[in-house]
Amino acid sequence: MAELRAVVFDFFGTLVDWRSSMLTAAAGTGDRSGRAADWAAVVDDWRRAYPPALERARRQPVWRDLDAVQRETLGDVLTRHGLDLPAVERERLVQAWRRLRPWPDTAPGLERLRTRLVTGTLSNGHVALLVDLLRFGGWRVDAVLSAELAQSYKPDPRVYRSAAQLLGCRPEEVGMGAAHAGDLEAAAEVGLRPLFVRRPEEWGTGVAEQPPDLPGLIVADDLEHLADQLGC
Amino acid sequence: MAELRAVVFDFFGTLVDWRSSMLTAAAGTGDRSGRAADWAAVVDDWRRAYPPALERARRQPVWRDLDAVQRETLGDVLTRHGLDLPAVERERLVQAWRRLRPWPDTAPGLERLRTRLVTGTLSNGHVALLVDLLRFGGWRVDAVLSAELAQSYKPDPRVYRSAAQLLGCRPEEVGMGAAHAGDLEAAAEVGLRPLFVRRPEEWGTGVAEQPPDLPGLIVADDLEHLADQLGC
Repeated sequence: MAELRAVVFDFFGTLVDWRSSMLTAAAGTGDRSGRAADWAAVVDDWRRAYPPALERARRQPVWRDLDAVQRETLGDVLTRHGLDLPAVERERLVQAWRRLRPWPDTAPGLERLRTRLVTGTLSNGHVALLVDLLRFGGWRVDAVLSAELAQSYKPDPRVYRSAAQLLGCRPEEVGMGAAHAGDLEAAAEVGLRPLFVRRPEEWGTGVAEQPPDLPGLIVADDLEHLADQLGC
Repeated sequence: MAELRAVVFDFFGTLVDWRSSMLTAAAGTGDRSGRAADWAAVVDDWRRAYPPALERARRQPVWRDLDAVQRETLGDVLTRHGLDLPAVERERLVQAWRRLRPWPDTAPGLERLRTRLVTGTLSNGHVALLVDLLRFGGWRVDAVLSAELAQSYKPDPRVYRSAAQLLGCRPEEVGMGAAHAGDLEAAAEVGLRPLFVRRPEEWGTGVAEQPPDLPGLIVADDLEHLADQLGC
Protein backbone atom coordinates (compact mmCIF):
# COMPACT_ATOMS: atom_id res chain seq x y z
CA MET A 1 0.00 0.00 0.00
CA ALA A 2 1.29 3.47 -0.86
CA GLU A 3 1.81 5.87 2.03
CA LEU A 4 -1.06 8.35 2.25
CA ARG A 5 -0.16 12.02 1.79
CA ALA A 6 -3.65 13.50 1.74
CA VAL A 7 -7.22 12.71 2.80
CA VAL A 8 -10.30 14.23 1.22
CA PHE A 9 -13.82 13.91 2.54
CA ASP A 10 -17.33 13.76 1.32
CA PHE A 11 -19.24 16.56 3.01
CA PHE A 12 -22.99 16.01 3.51
CA GLY A 13 -23.50 13.23 6.02
CA THR A 14 -19.79 12.52 6.40
CA LEU A 15 -18.58 15.84 7.88
CA VAL A 16 -21.86 17.60 8.64
CA ASP A 17 -25.15 16.48 10.11
CA TRP A 18 -27.36 17.79 7.32
CA ARG A 19 -30.52 16.13 8.67
CA SER A 20 -30.85 17.60 12.15
CA SER A 21 -29.74 21.00 10.81
CA MET A 22 -32.31 20.89 8.00
CA LEU A 23 -35.04 19.70 10.37
CA THR A 24 -34.43 22.84 12.45
CA ALA A 25 -34.63 24.96 9.30
CA ALA A 26 -37.82 23.21 8.14
CA ALA A 27 -39.46 23.67 11.54
CA GLY A 28 -38.83 27.41 11.12
CA THR A 29 -40.41 27.27 7.66
CA GLY A 30 -43.46 25.53 9.17
CA ASP A 31 -43.79 28.12 11.93
CA ARG A 32 -43.43 31.13 9.67
CA SER A 33 -45.61 29.84 6.84
CA GLY A 34 -48.23 28.19 9.05
CA ARG A 35 -48.12 25.14 6.74
CA ALA A 36 -48.64 21.82 8.50
CA ALA A 37 -46.56 19.02 7.04
CA ASP A 38 -44.43 16.02 7.91
CA TRP A 39 -41.31 18.14 7.63
CA ALA A 40 -38.96 15.24 8.40
CA ALA A 41 -40.40 13.39 5.40
CA VAL A 42 -40.02 16.52 3.24
CA VAL A 43 -36.37 16.92 4.28
CA ASP A 44 -35.59 13.21 3.77
CA ASP A 45 -37.32 13.11 0.39
CA TRP A 46 -35.48 16.25 -0.65
CA ARG A 47 -32.16 14.66 0.26
CA ARG A 48 -33.13 11.45 -1.54
CA ALA A 49 -33.89 13.43 -4.68
CA TYR A 50 -30.34 14.74 -4.77
CA PRO A 51 -28.33 11.80 -6.23
CA PRO A 52 -30.69 11.18 -9.19
CA ALA A 53 -30.89 14.95 -9.82
CA LEU A 54 -27.09 15.15 -9.96
CA GLU A 55 -27.04 12.17 -12.30
CA ARG A 56 -29.41 14.04 -14.63
CA ALA A 57 -27.40 17.27 -14.23
CA ARG A 58 -24.22 15.41 -15.22
CA ARG A 59 -25.73 14.71 -18.61
CA GLN A 60 -26.52 18.39 -19.26
CA PRO A 61 -24.10 20.41 -21.39
CA VAL A 62 -23.82 23.26 -18.84
CA TRP A 63 -22.65 22.54 -15.29
CA ARG A 64 -25.06 23.74 -12.58
CA ASP A 65 -24.23 24.34 -8.96
CA LEU A 66 -25.90 22.59 -6.08
CA ASP A 67 -28.10 25.59 -5.22
CA ALA A 68 -29.69 25.37 -8.67
CA VAL A 69 -30.15 21.60 -8.40
CA GLN A 70 -31.61 21.87 -4.89
CA ARG A 71 -34.03 24.61 -5.94
CA GLU A 72 -35.41 22.33 -8.63
CA THR A 73 -35.70 19.21 -6.48
CA LEU A 74 -37.28 21.18 -3.64
CA GLY A 75 -40.03 22.28 -6.04
CA ASP A 76 -40.72 18.65 -6.98
CA VAL A 77 -40.72 17.45 -3.38
CA LEU A 78 -43.07 20.21 -2.19
CA THR A 79 -45.46 19.41 -5.03
CA ARG A 80 -45.39 15.74 -4.09
CA HIS A 81 -46.22 16.66 -0.49
CA GLY A 82 -48.98 19.01 -1.64
CA LEU A 83 -47.20 21.96 -0.09
CA ASP A 84 -47.28 25.44 -1.53
CA LEU A 85 -44.57 27.66 -0.06
CA PRO A 86 -43.85 31.30 -0.83
CA ALA A 87 -40.72 31.86 -2.92
CA VAL A 88 -38.92 33.52 -0.02
CA GLU A 89 -39.45 30.45 2.18
CA ARG A 90 -38.26 28.11 -0.58
CA GLU A 91 -35.10 30.13 -0.98
CA ARG A 92 -34.57 30.16 2.77
CA LEU A 93 -34.63 26.36 2.73
CA VAL A 94 -32.15 26.23 -0.14
CA GLN A 95 -29.86 28.62 1.74
CA ALA A 96 -30.20 26.52 4.92
CA TRP A 97 -27.75 24.06 3.28
CA ARG A 98 -25.13 26.71 4.11
CA ARG A 99 -25.75 26.35 7.84
CA LEU A 100 -25.21 22.68 8.63
CA ARG A 101 -23.61 21.68 11.90
CA PRO A 102 -20.49 19.53 11.78
CA TRP A 103 -20.54 16.22 13.68
CA PRO A 104 -18.88 16.65 17.11
CA ASP A 105 -15.74 14.76 15.99
CA THR A 106 -15.34 16.60 12.66
CA ALA A 107 -13.28 19.60 13.79
CA PRO A 108 -11.02 17.79 16.29
CA GLY A 109 -10.59 14.80 13.94
CA LEU A 110 -9.60 17.01 11.01
CA GLU A 111 -7.14 18.95 13.19
CA ARG A 112 -5.45 15.70 14.16
CA LEU A 113 -5.40 14.43 10.57
CA ARG A 114 -3.82 17.65 9.29
CA THR A 115 -0.82 17.32 11.60
CA ARG A 116 0.48 14.64 9.24
CA LEU A 117 -1.70 14.72 6.12
CA VAL A 118 -3.06 17.34 3.78
CA THR A 119 -6.80 17.53 4.38
CA GLY A 120 -9.49 18.50 1.93
CA THR A 121 -13.13 18.29 1.04
CA LEU A 122 -14.33 16.46 -2.06
CA SER A 123 -17.99 17.24 -2.33
CA ASN A 124 -20.67 17.69 -4.95
CA GLY A 125 -21.31 21.00 -3.22
CA HIS A 126 -19.76 23.92 -5.10
CA VAL A 127 -16.76 25.80 -3.72
CA ALA A 128 -18.74 28.86 -2.56
CA LEU A 129 -21.21 26.65 -0.65
CA LEU A 130 -18.42 24.66 1.01
CA VAL A 131 -16.59 27.84 2.01
CA ASP A 132 -19.78 29.14 3.64
CA LEU A 133 -20.28 25.83 5.47
CA LEU A 134 -16.72 25.78 6.78
CA ARG A 135 -17.04 29.37 7.94
CA PHE A 136 -20.42 28.65 9.53
CA GLY A 137 -19.04 25.70 11.52
CA GLY A 138 -15.73 27.40 12.32
CA TRP A 139 -13.58 24.46 11.24
CA ARG A 140 -11.07 23.99 8.49
CA VAL A 141 -9.39 21.86 5.87
CA ASP A 142 -6.27 22.66 3.88
CA ALA A 143 -7.99 22.63 0.50
CA VAL A 144 -11.64 23.16 -0.40
CA LEU A 145 -12.01 20.80 -3.35
CA SER A 146 -15.28 20.22 -5.14
CA ALA A 147 -16.72 18.31 -8.07
CA GLU A 148 -17.19 21.82 -9.49
CA LEU A 149 -13.46 21.96 -10.22
CA ALA A 150 -13.92 19.00 -12.60
CA GLN A 151 -17.22 20.51 -13.84
CA SER A 152 -18.97 17.28 -12.98
CA TYR A 153 -20.36 15.41 -9.97
CA LYS A 154 -19.32 12.32 -8.05
CA PRO A 155 -19.27 9.44 -8.81
CA ASP A 156 -17.69 10.59 -12.11
CA PRO A 157 -14.09 9.27 -11.99
CA ARG A 158 -12.84 12.63 -13.26
CA VAL A 159 -13.83 14.23 -9.96
CA TYR A 160 -11.60 11.91 -7.90
CA ARG A 161 -8.75 12.14 -10.41
CA SER A 162 -8.86 15.93 -10.46
CA ALA A 163 -8.66 16.04 -6.65
CA ALA A 164 -5.52 13.90 -6.58
CA GLN A 165 -3.98 15.95 -9.37
CA LEU A 166 -4.74 19.28 -7.67
CA LEU A 167 -3.09 17.99 -4.50
CA GLY A 168 -0.01 16.93 -6.47
CA CYS A 169 -0.53 13.32 -5.45
CA ARG A 170 -0.84 10.00 -7.19
CA PRO A 171 -4.37 8.62 -6.63
CA GLU A 172 -3.09 5.91 -4.25
CA GLU A 173 -1.55 8.60 -2.04
CA VAL A 174 -4.99 10.10 -1.40
CA GLY A 175 -7.55 8.69 1.01
CA MET A 176 -11.24 9.26 0.26
CA GLY A 177 -13.33 9.49 3.43
CA ALA A 178 -17.09 8.98 3.19
CA ALA A 179 -20.06 7.51 5.02
CA HIS A 180 -21.40 6.19 1.72
CA ALA A 181 -20.30 2.96 0.04
CA GLY A 182 -20.97 4.19 -3.50
CA ASP A 183 -18.66 7.18 -3.12
CA LEU A 184 -15.84 4.93 -1.91
CA GLU A 185 -16.38 2.35 -4.63
CA ALA A 186 -16.07 5.07 -7.29
CA ALA A 187 -12.99 6.57 -5.58
CA ALA A 188 -11.32 3.15 -5.25
CA GLU A 189 -11.97 2.45 -8.93
CA VAL A 190 -9.68 5.40 -9.71
CA GLY A 191 -7.08 4.26 -7.16
CA LEU A 192 -7.89 6.36 -4.10
CA ARG A 193 -7.72 4.61 -0.71
CA PRO A 194 -11.25 4.04 0.69
CA LEU A 195 -11.87 5.28 4.25
CA PHE A 196 -15.34 4.45 5.51
CA VAL A 197 -16.73 6.60 8.32
CA ARG A 198 -19.77 5.20 10.12
CA ARG A 199 -22.51 7.82 10.54
CA PRO A 200 -25.43 5.95 12.16
CA GLU A 201 -27.29 9.20 12.79
CA GLU A 202 -27.13 10.52 9.23
CA TRP A 203 -30.78 9.53 8.70
CA GLY A 204 -31.63 9.64 12.39
CA THR A 205 -32.06 5.87 12.49
CA GLY A 206 -29.04 4.78 14.55
CA VAL A 207 -28.07 2.51 11.67
CA ALA A 208 -25.01 3.31 9.57
CA GLU A 209 -24.70 2.28 5.96
CA GLN A 210 -22.81 -0.99 5.41
CA PRO A 211 -19.15 -0.47 4.50
CA PRO A 212 -18.26 -1.54 0.96
CA ASP A 213 -16.11 -4.60 0.32
CA LEU A 214 -12.92 -3.04 -1.01
CA PRO A 215 -9.23 -3.92 -0.74
CA GLY A 216 -7.35 -1.78 1.79
CA LEU A 217 -10.58 -0.39 3.26
CA ILE A 218 -10.30 1.34 6.63
CA VAL A 219 -13.49 1.51 8.68
CA ALA A 220 -13.75 4.19 11.38
CA ASP A 221 -16.43 5.04 13.91
CA ASP A 222 -15.67 8.75 13.52
CA LEU A 223 -12.86 11.09 12.45
CA GLU A 224 -10.95 10.74 15.71
CA HIS A 225 -10.99 6.96 15.27
CA LEU A 226 -9.80 7.46 11.70
CA ALA A 227 -6.95 9.67 12.96
CA ASP A 228 -5.99 6.88 15.41
CA GLN A 229 -5.83 4.36 12.59
CA LEU A 230 -3.82 6.66 10.32
CA GLY A 231 -1.29 7.33 13.07
CA CYS A 232 -2.20 11.01 13.50
CA MET B 1 -19.15 50.92 -5.26
CA ALA B 2 -20.47 47.41 -4.61
CA GLU B 3 -20.01 46.07 -1.08
CA LEU B 4 -17.09 43.63 -0.96
CA ARG B 5 -17.92 40.03 0.00
CA ALA B 6 -14.51 38.46 -0.62
CA VAL B 7 -10.84 39.37 -0.93
CA VAL B 8 -8.28 37.30 -2.79
CA PHE B 9 -4.55 37.85 -2.72
CA ASP B 10 -1.56 37.45 -4.88
CA PHE B 11 0.89 35.22 -3.05
CA PHE B 12 4.59 35.71 -3.86
CA GLY B 13 5.70 39.11 -2.58
CA THR B 14 2.21 40.08 -1.37
CA LEU B 15 1.65 37.42 1.33
CA VAL B 16 5.08 35.82 1.61
CA ASP B 17 8.61 37.18 1.65
CA TRP B 18 9.98 34.98 -1.13
CA ARG B 19 13.30 36.82 -1.32
CA SER B 20 14.69 36.47 2.18
CA SER B 21 13.42 32.89 2.33
CA MET B 22 15.05 32.01 -1.01
CA LEU B 23 18.30 33.75 -0.02
CA THR B 24 18.47 31.44 3.00
CA ALA B 25 17.84 28.42 0.75
CA ALA B 26 20.45 29.59 -1.77
CA ALA B 27 23.04 30.12 0.98
CA GLY B 28 22.48 26.46 1.92
CA THR B 29 22.99 25.47 -1.71
CA GLY B 30 26.26 27.44 -1.77
CA ASP B 31 27.52 25.80 1.43
CA ARG B 32 26.65 22.25 0.39
CA SER B 33 27.84 22.52 -3.21
CA GLY B 34 30.92 24.63 -2.48
CA ARG B 35 29.99 26.83 -5.47
CA ALA B 36 30.84 30.51 -5.04
CA ALA B 37 28.29 32.83 -6.60
CA ASP B 38 26.39 36.06 -6.12
CA TRP B 39 23.41 34.12 -4.80
CA ALA B 40 21.27 37.22 -4.31
CA ALA B 41 21.69 37.99 -8.02
CA VAL B 42 20.83 34.37 -8.89
CA VAL B 43 17.66 34.48 -6.78
CA ASP B 44 16.61 37.88 -8.13
CA ASP B 45 17.29 36.87 -11.74
CA TRP B 46 15.35 33.66 -11.19
CA ARG B 47 12.38 35.59 -9.89
CA ARG B 48 12.63 38.07 -12.78
CA ALA B 49 12.56 35.17 -15.24
CA TYR B 50 9.17 34.07 -13.88
CA PRO B 51 6.71 36.51 -15.53
CA PRO B 52 8.06 36.08 -19.09
CA ALA B 53 8.25 32.30 -18.56
CA LEU B 54 4.58 32.24 -17.53
CA GLU B 55 3.72 34.37 -20.55
CA ARG B 56 5.38 31.75 -22.78
CA ALA B 57 3.72 28.90 -20.84
CA ARG B 58 0.31 30.52 -21.39
CA ARG B 59 0.74 30.09 -25.11
CA GLN B 60 1.47 26.34 -24.80
CA PRO B 61 -1.36 23.88 -25.41
CA VAL B 62 -0.75 21.96 -22.16
CA TRP B 63 -0.87 23.77 -18.82
CA ARG B 64 2.28 23.35 -16.69
CA ASP B 65 2.56 23.92 -12.97
CA LEU B 66 4.91 26.39 -11.38
CA ASP B 67 7.41 23.70 -10.32
CA ALA B 68 7.91 22.79 -13.98
CA VAL B 69 8.25 26.43 -15.02
CA GLN B 70 10.68 27.18 -12.18
CA ARG B 71 12.83 24.15 -13.02
CA GLU B 72 13.25 25.42 -16.54
CA THR B 73 14.00 29.04 -15.63
CA LEU B 74 16.45 27.96 -12.91
CA GLY B 75 18.42 26.05 -15.54
CA ASP B 76 18.62 29.17 -17.72
CA VAL B 77 19.61 31.43 -14.82
CA LEU B 78 22.34 29.08 -13.59
CA THR B 79 23.77 28.84 -17.09
CA ARG B 80 23.80 32.63 -17.34
CA HIS B 81 25.69 32.83 -14.04
CA GLY B 82 28.13 30.09 -15.20
CA LEU B 83 26.99 27.84 -12.36
CA ASP B 84 26.80 24.08 -12.64
CA LEU B 85 24.75 22.55 -9.81
CA PRO B 86 24.00 18.87 -9.19
CA ALA B 87 20.41 17.86 -10.01
CA VAL B 88 19.63 17.25 -6.36
CA GLU B 89 20.63 20.83 -5.45
CA ARG B 90 18.58 22.27 -8.30
CA GLU B 91 15.54 20.36 -7.14
CA ARG B 92 16.12 21.51 -3.57
CA LEU B 93 15.99 25.09 -4.78
CA VAL B 94 12.77 24.46 -6.71
CA GLN B 95 11.25 22.88 -3.61
CA ALA B 96 12.40 25.81 -1.45
CA TRP B 97 9.48 27.75 -2.99
CA ARG B 98 7.32 25.61 -0.67
CA ARG B 99 9.01 27.08 2.42
CA LEU B 100 8.52 30.83 2.18
CA ARG B 101 7.89 32.86 5.29
CA PRO B 102 4.75 35.02 5.42
CA TRP B 103 5.21 38.73 6.13
CA PRO B 104 4.65 39.45 9.85
CA ASP B 105 1.23 41.05 9.18
CA THR B 106 -0.03 38.31 6.84
CA ALA B 107 -1.53 35.89 9.38
CA PRO B 108 -3.05 38.49 11.74
CA GLY B 109 -4.28 40.63 8.84
CA LEU B 110 -5.99 37.68 7.14
CA GLU B 111 -7.60 36.61 10.41
CA ARG B 112 -9.10 40.08 10.79
CA LEU B 113 -10.24 40.19 7.18
CA ARG B 114 -11.96 36.81 7.44
CA THR B 115 -14.17 37.96 10.32
CA ARG B 116 -16.23 39.84 7.73
CA LEU B 117 -15.07 38.71 4.30
CA VAL B 118 -14.31 35.44 2.57
CA THR B 119 -10.55 35.29 2.09
CA GLY B 120 -8.65 33.49 -0.62
CA THR B 121 -5.44 33.26 -2.53
CA LEU B 122 -5.27 33.99 -6.24
CA SER B 123 -1.82 33.00 -7.32
CA ASN B 124 -0.01 31.64 -10.33
CA GLY B 125 1.28 28.99 -7.96
CA HIS B 126 -0.61 25.72 -8.31
CA VAL B 127 -2.99 24.50 -5.61
CA ALA B 128 -0.63 21.85 -4.20
CA LEU B 129 2.18 24.40 -3.86
CA LEU B 130 -0.09 26.94 -2.16
CA VAL B 131 -1.40 24.31 0.26
CA ASP B 132 2.18 23.42 1.21
CA LEU B 133 3.03 27.10 1.71
CA LEU B 134 0.00 27.71 3.92
CA ARG B 135 0.82 24.63 5.99
CA PHE B 136 4.48 25.67 6.22
CA GLY B 137 3.61 29.13 7.53
CA GLY B 138 0.74 27.92 9.72
CA TRP B 139 -1.77 30.49 8.47
CA ARG B 140 -4.99 30.20 6.56
CA VAL B 141 -7.45 31.51 4.02
CA ASP B 142 -10.98 30.28 3.37
CA ALA B 143 -10.30 29.20 -0.21
CA VAL B 144 -7.06 28.27 -1.92
CA LEU B 145 -7.66 29.58 -5.43
CA SER B 146 -5.09 29.44 -8.17
CA ALA B 147 -4.65 30.29 -11.83
CA GLU B 148 -4.45 26.49 -12.18
CA LEU B 149 -8.23 26.31 -11.73
CA ALA B 150 -8.61 28.37 -14.91
CA GLN B 151 -5.75 26.41 -16.55
CA SER B 152 -3.98 29.67 -17.26
CA TYR B 153 -1.86 32.30 -15.53
CA LYS B 154 -2.44 35.85 -14.39
CA PRO B 155 -2.85 38.38 -15.95
CA ASP B 156 -5.24 36.35 -18.14
CA PRO B 157 -8.72 37.80 -17.39
CA ARG B 158 -10.14 34.25 -17.15
CA VAL B 159 -8.14 33.72 -13.95
CA TYR B 160 -9.79 36.65 -12.15
CA ARG B 161 -13.23 35.79 -13.54
CA SER B 162 -12.96 32.17 -12.43
CA ALA B 163 -12.04 33.24 -8.89
CA ALA B 164 -15.13 35.44 -8.57
CA GLN B 165 -17.30 32.70 -10.03
CA LEU B 166 -15.93 30.03 -7.69
CA LEU B 167 -16.64 32.30 -4.74
CA GLY B 168 -20.21 32.84 -5.96
CA CYS B 169 -19.60 36.58 -6.29
CA ARG B 170 -19.98 39.21 -8.96
CA PRO B 171 -16.50 40.50 -9.91
CA GLU B 172 -17.15 43.87 -8.20
CA GLU B 173 -17.85 42.05 -4.92
CA VAL B 174 -14.31 40.67 -4.88
CA GLY B 175 -11.22 42.63 -3.88
CA MET B 176 -7.89 41.69 -5.45
CA GLY B 177 -4.96 42.34 -3.12
CA ALA B 178 -1.47 42.58 -4.58
CA ALA B 179 1.83 44.39 -4.24
CA HIS B 180 2.09 44.57 -8.02
CA ALA B 181 0.40 47.18 -10.20
CA GLY B 182 0.08 44.90 -13.24
CA ASP B 183 -1.87 42.29 -11.31
CA LEU B 184 -4.33 44.93 -10.08
CA GLU B 185 -4.72 46.51 -13.51
CA ALA B 186 -5.67 43.15 -14.98
CA ALA B 187 -8.04 42.39 -12.08
CA ALA B 188 -9.71 45.81 -12.34
CA GLU B 189 -10.19 45.32 -16.08
CA VAL B 190 -12.47 42.38 -15.22
CA GLY B 191 -14.25 44.38 -12.52
CA LEU B 192 -12.49 43.28 -9.32
CA ARG B 193 -11.75 45.97 -6.73
CA PRO B 194 -8.02 46.79 -6.65
CA LEU B 195 -6.33 46.67 -3.23
CA PHE B 196 -2.69 47.69 -3.35
CA VAL B 197 -0.44 46.43 -0.55
CA ARG B 198 2.93 48.16 -0.23
CA ARG B 199 5.80 45.68 0.16
CA PRO B 200 8.96 47.81 0.21
CA GLU B 201 11.09 44.83 1.23
CA GLU B 202 9.96 42.49 -1.55
CA TRP B 203 13.25 43.09 -3.40
CA GLY B 204 15.18 44.07 -0.28
CA THR B 205 15.40 47.68 -1.44
CA GLY B 206 13.06 49.48 0.95
CA VAL B 207 11.19 50.82 -2.08
CA ALA B 208 7.69 49.54 -2.83
CA GLU B 209 6.29 49.43 -6.35
CA GLN B 210 4.17 52.46 -7.30
CA PRO B 211 0.43 51.85 -6.89
CA PRO B 212 -1.50 51.83 -10.17
CA ASP B 213 -3.88 54.65 -11.06
CA LEU B 214 -7.25 52.89 -10.86
CA PRO B 215 -10.74 53.99 -9.80
CA GLY B 216 -11.69 52.82 -6.31
CA LEU B 217 -8.11 51.81 -5.49
CA ILE B 218 -7.32 51.22 -1.83
CA VAL B 219 -3.66 51.54 -0.83
CA ALA B 220 -2.51 49.79 2.35
CA ASP B 221 0.84 49.63 4.12
CA ASP B 222 0.18 46.02 5.11
CA LEU B 223 -2.71 43.60 5.67
CA GLU B 224 -3.61 45.01 9.08
CA HIS B 225 -3.86 48.46 7.51
CA LEU B 226 -6.04 46.95 4.78
CA ALA B 227 -8.29 45.37 7.44
CA ASP B 228 -8.62 48.82 9.08
CA GLN B 229 -9.71 50.36 5.79
CA LEU B 230 -12.20 47.57 5.03
CA GLY B 231 -13.77 47.90 8.48
CA CYS B 232 -12.59 44.48 9.71
